[in-house]
Amino acid sequence: MSNDTQVMLGHGSGGSMMKRIIDEVFLNAYGSTEFDRGDDAAVLPGTEKDQRLAFSSDSFVVTPHFFPGGDIGRLAVCGTVNDVATTGAIPKYLSCAMILEEGFPMEDLKRVCQSMAEAAKEAGVQIVTGDTKVVNRGHGDGIYINTSGVGIVREGLDLSGANCKPGDKVLVSGTLGDHGITIMSCREGLNFKTDIQSDAAPLNHLIASVIEAAPNTRCFRDPTRGGIASTLNELAAQSDVDITIEEQAVPVKDAVLGACEMLGYDVFQVANEGKMVCVVPPEEADSALAAMRNDRYGKDAAIIGEVIEAKNADSGCKVYLKTAFGSTRILDMLVGEQLPRIC
Amino acid sequence: MSNDTQVMLGHGSGGSMMKRIIDEVFLNAYGSTEFDRGDDAAVLPGTEKDQRLAFSSDSFVVTPHFFPGGDIGRLAVCGTVNDVATTGAIPKYLSCAMILEEGFPMEDLKRVCQSMAEAAKEAGVQIVTGDTKVVNRGHGDGIYINTSGVGIVREGLDLSGANCKPGDKVLVSGTLGDHGITIMSCREGLNFKTDIQSDAAPLNHLIASVIEAAPNTRCFRDPTRGGIASTLNELAAQSDVDITIEEQAVPVKDAVLGACEMLGYDVFQVANEGKMVCVVPPEEADSALAAMRNDRYGKDAAIIGEVIEAKNADSGCKVYLKTAFGSTRILDMLVGEQLPRIC
Repeated sequence: MSNDTQVMLGHGSGGSMMKRIIDEVFLNAYGSTEFDRGDDAAVLPGTEKDQRLAFSSDSFVVTPHFFPGGDIGRLAVCGTVNDVATTGAIPKYLSCAMILEEGFPMEDLKRVCQSMAEAAKEAGVQIVTGDTKVVNRGHGDGIYINTSGVGIVREGLDLSGANCKPGDKVLVSGTLGDHGITIMSCREGLNFKTDIQSDAAPLNHLIASVIEAAPNTRCFRDPTRGGIASTLNELAAQSDVDITIEEQAVPVKDAVLGACEMLGYDVFQVANEGKMVCVVPPEEADSALAAMRNDRYGKDAAIIGEVIEAKNADSGCKVYLKTAFGSTRILDMLVGEQLPRIC
Repeated sequence: MSNDTQVMLGHGSGGSMMKRIIDEVFLNAYGSTEFDRGDDAAVLPGTEKDQRLAFSSDSFVVTPHFFPGGDIGRLAVCGTVNDVATTGAIPKYLSCAMILEEGFPMEDLKRVCQSMAEAAKEAGVQIVTGDTKVVNRGHGDGIYINTSGVGIVREGLDLSGANCKPGDKVLVSGTLGDHGITIMSCREGLNFKTDIQSDAAPLNHLIASVIEAAPNTRCFRDPTRGGIASTLNELAAQSDVDITIEEQAVPVKDAVLGACEMLGYDVFQVANEGKMVCVVPPEEADSALAAMRNDRYGKDAAIIGEVIEAKNADSGCKVYLKTAFGSTRILDMLVGEQLPRIC
């Protein structure tokens, strides 16, 4: 057991501190078989034979509420749509529960709701139920939004982070770090004189195309908090494998890379809100890549690495990064907090 | 349109200000047929013929976090279980998304989670997915919890607040006001030297018994924020009817009544977290009452009134209270805020 006596910002980071609070507190108290699987959404039996539901929930506490490329409302819809879609489900229904702070401008609330409506329309989901709580001034930050989502899992599909096998290829649907760097630059008032903007987007249509093109896809996972480094480490641990990534193959915008270098961030640990990692068997990698590139949100998709046998499973599964200089370094899960409240 | 330019505490009250923000902001932006129905949970088609899902979401921001009879965790499980159950569904799965404030004691978090586990076990639901966000000190209040719930609607049932017909009987499953008065007395440090405690409880088993005993039940609704006055006004408006309530028939604990008189609260507007209002056809009222009284949470159940034709629908549907003195007064929906953050 850890010696954490208080909640710290790092417990919400998407990294290893968050894993600790989940394991030691939440799973310990109310874990269920589905909760334990560690995927981004639960897959649940419906009433009918072979019918399965996908169910996921996320709260959004990003600050600022509005940023280039999106706002907290677009993020709240896309985040949950994407989590539901990672299971291979067709997202159908969303709930929207607001925690508003006394004094929040009604005009901002309307703008956020409009943005949610547009994102829901784009994703093809309906917002069907909701809740509104108002907290006293000084006990919130304008607006926090929870969305939960329900989808219907495609028959016969069984995607999970635990399915990766040595030889499988790892794909990513586009450039890394756009969302995290956008939020950071807004918050710090930095101006990179470039057009960096958040990638917040619903990826359920992209996922549908990949499933059609690559029917043996192992899993999808969206590299949000903790970045792709955390996502790949989660997949390696779930599947008991190692993963190697070719740095040169990973799509990153120059401006994002520049910002990361300037600020000392590892782009592999920076959050994305409109990117999907996908693991497929080697013979389906090219079809999956073509399907991604054919989607409006997948133009920069790339095959970035592969799954290998765990070299030393006793000391934990690892993610290796082969750098442009030919060296190899271990890509670690984010530990504490890099950039709080990016979603 | 109202002239609200900022969010106010009353917008989260469960009363008519909340109805306004829902209608003018949320429904206006992303209303769907299901959202528009105005029930506590959405009823949705599954993939199979005749299969329907119930889906509901609630955030919990109660302060204090621990109080006689429960805590924010028990409330979070029971509230959503009850909302799902009101549709006539069997609640099956819950999500749990936490917004924690930096510095929240880990021991308190564990206690809350333990309480959620116990309430979930009692209700027979599984917590299957979750999310953890941490906000900076001064931007929360220790812990906010969102739970969303999915249930399977019993075949052939079609419960809705829009189903009430003149002649129907109105039942309540027990004493009113226990939760609201408990929270208020904790918060103000009042000591009524009585054993008032929150009624927070999962009522899905009670609902199941009533449905079995009274198969033509029109609807269930839990009178939480805004109290039974708001619930009855909602039902009257949804069904286009008036409702009359006999004050003498309404179960209220002496201590709660005393506290309300002392503090100037209308017990009909005080929140409950373990009570159910139920409308049934007259010929099934006795069976429904017997079923409620047979449940551990329904010992004080009573038939408290009936549905009548709307006297003047043009000026709005009304709820009438026949007082102990033989007079009649209109029971209004709560307008602004009586007691903020009671759930």
